Amino acid sequence: MNGRERFLAACNRQPVDRPPVWVMRQAGRYLPEYMEVRAKHDFLEVCRSPELVTEVTMQPLRRFNLDAAIIFSDILVVPEAMGQQVTYPKGGPRLTPTIRQASDLERLKECEPEKDLAYVGDALRLMRQTMGEDRALLGFAGAPYTLATYMVEGGGSRHQEQTKRLALGDPELMDELLERLADGVARFLKLQIEAGADAVQIFDTWAGDLSPTDFERLALKPARRVTAQLADLGVPIIYFMNGIAAHLEAAADSGATALGIDWRLDLAEARRRTGGKLALQGNLDPLVLSGPTAIIRERVRAIHDSLDGAPGHIFNLGHGVLPTTPIEGVAAFVDAVVELAK
Amino acid sequence: MNGRERFLAACNRQPVDRPPVWVMRQAGRYLPEYMEVRAKHDFLEVCRSPELVTEVTMQPLRRFNLDAAIIFSDILVVPEAMGQQVTYPKGGPRLTPTIRQASDLERLKECEPEKDLAYVGDALRLMRQTMGEDRALLGFAGAPYTLATYMVEGGGSRHQEQTKRLALGDPELMDELLERLADGVARFLKLQIEAGADAVQIFDTWAGDLSPTDFERLALKPARRVTAQLADLGVPIIYFMNGIAAHLEAAADSGATALGIDWRLDLAEARRRTGGKLALQGNLDPLVLSGPTAIIRERVRAIHDSLDGAPGHIFNLGHGVLPTTPIEGVAAFVDAVVELAK
Repeated sequence: MNGRERFLAACNRQPVDRPPVWVMRQAGRYLPEYMEVRAKHDFLEVCRSPELVTEVTMQPLRRFNLDAAIIFSDILVVPEAMGQQVTYPKGGPRLTPTIRQASDLERLKECEPEKDLAYVGDALRLMRQTMGEDRALLGFAGAPYTLATYMVEGGGSRHQEQTKRLALGDPELMDELLERLADGVARFLKLQIEAGADAVQIFDTWAGDLSPTDFERLALKPARRVTAQLADLGVPIIYFMNGIAAHLEAAADSGATALGIDWRLDLAEARRRTGGKLALQGNLDPLVLSGPTAIIRERVRAIHDSLDGAPGHIFNLGHGVLPTTPIEGVAAFVDAVVELAK
Repeated sequence: MNGRERFLAACNRQPVDRPPVWVMRQAGRYLPEYMEVRAKHDFLEVCRSPELVTEVTMQPLRRFNLDAAIIFSDILVVPEAMGQQVTYPKGGPRLTPTIRQASDLERLKECEPEKDLAYVGDALRLMRQTMGEDRALLGFAGAPYTLATYMVEGGGSRHQEQTKRLALGDPELMDELLERLADGVARFLKLQIEAGADAVQIFDTWAGDLSPTDFERLALKPARRVTAQLADLGVPIIYFMNGIAAHLEAAADSGATALGIDWRLDLAEARRRTGGKLALQGNLDPLVLSGPTAIIRERVRAIHDSLDGAPGHIFNLGHGVLPTTPIEGVAAFVDAVVELAK
């Protein structure tokens, strides 16, 4: 069973020799070879060059026994394709002009991935050529709600104040923004699937900070609008949010094949609460990779054992690997999962 | 039924005419009269002066029909009483020297509230004199784990990286720090109860970001060590953490009388999962107070109705009121709860 078969089998809750493993943000700042590339090329330059994307996406595959690669890119390529200006100064991304009223939304264009985001398709094709056929290749996009928070706030934010205000004060405008985002994201994910992605992940990073009422309307409904447009393609869709515990049952209705579970929630409890009706991905605390190897192995084993052999587990961290993570910690994590086969 | 009776009855899951209401951080930066005090006195000066504490603690009581006041103070008075230097530059508190190894811990002294934190007791006594007997007065402290994160990181932090590293790499040291904190916090809360606090809240703000395994060891065990030392006093204890959904059943075993529920988790679900065995406090999204009045009223009513008359609900936000909150939003929230009596 190669990595690609293992990954796809787990997504479809079929038997595997061991759980497949990959790491969110596995191509990134904890790798010196990535920092070397970034010393010569800025972030956007890397994202837009299929060659550089392929290089940094390959980097973790050279070091670790991973079953899947995720194409190196950024969720903010969608707002950019809709006409916002996106820059990456120190301190986090900046999006201008912010979306606060109807006229701001009117100025945005539709996201036309085949025109504006063709470079992501090119990168996926080159990456597949380079990596071969024996590991899975994932595409991804930001979820409508999470993208909307960046577009409304003008960047990252702690409380999504302006977004929630807009959603309460001008619900029609927010709904229109979310619908346009959902349709753009769906087209973008289709493009990635057509370019060879074996599966796609939808990152709804901020959705976990919504109340149940707002989650249903602002996150889940638009996410369903995305998954509905991909359902015919037969490709696994992983829906990830940070802080899923309060919204687990609702998220299980997102139309996704698998749910990403962050480290706060016990994975066996997540399985019990979702009744095994979809695959689960996760969920080691990324900080554990900064601890002793023995503890990394112990925690991997504990997560695995807690599932008691139930099918449909994709091993991963509960959130992206942190830039301060020692490479040995990532290696110990991947090795510990690989050894579960024995 | 006055506010104090209503508040205590709800804590003890007895019948009330309507849920009692107070607001986390109700004395704070959204109030111009608070900003006026702060223009003349820095934060620590306010905390240390019983007169100034009483003035700012009284401010929201003058404006809103609240059932309880919480004494104005800061969770970091405990690390300071243990010998760390605590300052409040722009960008958040700074604690030095940080606790990273055994010798750092050895340099700390025991927290002796009767000596080092007597001013908090004085403030509670003056506040009671000033506010009268008809509303509840709450004391509070940071929980051991949350205090430990500040002491180890040297301030606030997004991922509690150093704290989690220390907990994995030197568990004995972390356990000793947590035990010393628990005993200091317990003594401090006792002092506040003896000074007239009707109830105390333990803020474990960061505990929600732990995995279940780490939550049990790092947050719950020390929190139980606190509550065990207060059990004989017969005063309600509210245990609050931000992001409780993943840890609800565990937190219900903290020995607290009531659990603070943040806005992410459906309150009726929280009640179902805790079996009505303790009171629940919360849980409107603080950002809703920035929305239209009609929505504030609608959401208050929805939370109330979802509980279907079950006893043991203290109305509050799901987290502290934000500095950008309009005063009218806070007024609309409190009024909406008060009107539930009709």
